Amino acid sequence: MASSDVKFQGWLGLDPESVKGKMQWGEFEPKKWEEEDVDIEISHCGICGSDLHMLRSGWGQTPYPCVVGHEIVGKAVRVGKNVKHIKVGDRVGVGAQARSCLEADCPECSHGLENHCARENTNTYGSIYPNGLGKSYGGYATHNRTNGHFVIKIPDGIDSADAAPMMCGGVTMYSPLRRYGCGPGKTVGIVGVGGLGHFGVLFAKALGADKVVGISRKSEKREEVLKIGADEYIATDDDGDWHKKNKRTIDLIIGTVSSAKMPLTQYLGLLKVGGTFVQVGAPDGGELPPVNAFTLIGGSIKVAGSGIGAPWEIEEMLKLAAEKNIKPWVQPRPISDANQAVVDMEAGKARYRYVLEVKKEITEKL
Amino acid sequence: MASSDVKFQGWLGLDPESVKGKMQWGEFEPKKWEEEDVDIEISHCGICGSDLHMLRSGWGQTPYPCVVGHEIVGKAVRVGKNVKHIKVGDRVGVGAQARSCLEADCPECSHGLENHCARENTNTYGSIYPNGLGKSYGGYATHNRTNGHFVIKIPDGIDSADAAPMMCGGVTMYSPLRRYGCGPGKTVGIVGVGGLGHFGVLFAKALGADKVVGISRKSEKREEVLKIGADEYIATDDDGDWHKKNKRTIDLIIGTVSSAKMPLTQYLGLLKVGGTFVQVGAPDGGELPPVNAFTLIGGSIKVAGSGIGAPWEIEEMLKLAAEKNIKPWVQPRPISDANQAVVDMEAGKARYRYVLEVKKEITEKL
Repeated sequence: MASSDVKFQGWLGLDPESVKGKMQWGEFEPKKWEEEDVDIEISHCGICGSDLHMLRSGWGQTPYPCVVGHEIVGKAVRVGKNVKHIKVGDRVGVGAQARSCLEADCPECSHGLENHCARENTNTYGSIYPNGLGKSYGGYATHNRTNGHFVIKIPDGIDSADAAPMMCGGVTMYSPLRRYGCGPGKTVGIVGVGGLGHFGVLFAKALGADKVVGISRKSEKREEVLKIGADEYIATDDDGDWHKKNKRTIDLIIGTVSSAKMPLTQYLGLLKVGGTFVQVGAPDGGELPPVNAFTLIGGSIKVAGSGIGAPWEIEEMLKLAAEKNIKPWVQPRPISDANQAVVDMEAGKARYRYVLEVKKEITEKL
Repeated sequence: MASSDVKFQGWLGLDPESVKGKMQWGEFEPKKWEEEDVDIEISHCGICGSDLHMLRSGWGQTPYPCVVGHEIVGKAVRVGKNVKHIKVGDRVGVGAQARSCLEADCPECSHGLENHCARENTNTYGSIYPNGLGKSYGGYATHNRTNGHFVIKIPDGIDSADAAPMMCGGVTMYSPLRRYGCGPGKTVGIVGVGGLGHFGVLFAKALGADKVVGISRKSEKREEVLKIGADEYIATDDDGDWHKKNKRTIDLIIGTVSSAKMPLTQYLGLLKVGGTFVQVGAPDGGELPPVNAFTLIGGSIKVAGSGIGAPWEIEEMLKLAAEKNIKPWVQPRPISDANQAVVDMEAGKARYRYVLEVKKEITEKL
């Protein structure tokens, strides 16, 4: 058993200005308790690009007040009767999704595609639950309450600070890599080696790809990308004729940069015949450059999309990360620095993922 | 042995006006003979949309004079020493490709992807061979000369008139259906039920799809599409809310209509999670409507392209067609009517494929 009179406190975004480092610390009312839920005492929360979009209402009007953060790790302190795989005291994590319909006749939920459920797709923060259950609040906070199906046990052998950013950023890359056959014999490209992209390099190597190619704009980044684990690096601003020299050399590209100005047709030219380009993440608007039918037909290639991952994929990823001792590049920041960390993240300073550390002795003073 | 003093005659396109029914009958010089080649006395040639594009210089300047036609069936009358799988007298066919590099170190040719060879991709007509070997000429003619690797034996049990349009139109649909898993348990959609699309319906059924959905604009076409073998029909101009009613119901869609105005985003909405839309064929220009990153990510879908098929795929398709007794809807026309047939094809009158019949008693009088 565990206490049910936990006080939920966190960094509240009250309006679009909050993204400029103006979140305010305060109490909030979590969703109404159900026996499918788990309450988590948060120890770590990664800062994801989505947090910034949401704070500024970049994906439509955000239902303020909003506590962002969906790369949560902590300790289960209350576990609903109907949750079988978690017990009080377990180290657990929550990603970007808090609930789906989970009905047996749901074509998505019944096939391990909870992240694509068409009936209910409640995000970890900024969503309104059906039936007056309240709102979802994220992990820049002392506590989180999420449906147990979306609460994943963290295996031993991964630091909590490393596991946190895997809950969204990690699985966003792991899921398409695995689904599109990353493994021995394959050459994999990662476009944009930032927070997401660096996970792409790490997981592509861990999955056994023959060669991993980091693709970014500037040549200054070369050494660092190779240090993360890439075998090769292409600097699209600085390597002349890069798309000609590397034509038809890559089996699978995961694109973490989405912009109407990116050289998509040239990226597609890097694919071998039958290859796949998977776009993950999307900026405000989601606009992509046009793709010509001849580009698709000439190489029998595909342009795909992928969004986060299902709970079983998060579990599988964490297992692999523990086995292969994957070390993401994280920069811990105390939860008291959340506002500055958001500003730094927006300025592109993260190398490669900020993780907020939540400790009672800090939060008590906020 | 067979005669080498065959006289090659056919319908010559001399300028872009030729597409208006102004091809002229005359002699032409085939490529220089090599011992890898086969000469074919043509009995049938299908009329493909590509023929019209090429006659009018729709895909860049056509090297006139040009004899179009790449759905060729006939009898091998001369077989080069280095061709092992064909003998004189065999009934054979040629599709849209006449030659690739066929080198052992070619990443495409060595993997059964001859149709994507980056070193040489000589079309059955309108291409200029390397090394002064001359030009390729197609099948609106008495004879054709093609590299034996691209000459396929036609199995017994298929009429030549039925086999001819399969050589390009058939395999253009068969290849992506097979490659993207059309079979039991799958629902398959075919956008545009014309010459290509009707092959899509036939082959999707033959491959064992649970359900085949014809998708075209007008409701008048419904009965005919069901008669071809589709289980359902969607008329996008006439069925209100068609994209909402049929949301997430189809595993694989093959798109035979390419236009910057087609409702691509709505077609994509018909795909189940993880589904694939494959664009085949491309009009002059190849422009497609823009696709938003959120559309791709929301359903983890893919937009792919596919162009014709490799020789082994044509062979496999013909075997299936013979086994399942597939009967395409062809309308035979005498070779003497080629000009009128091209005009009728351009006017969209084919139901669903014109096939020119080539007989000596007719060509002698031209």
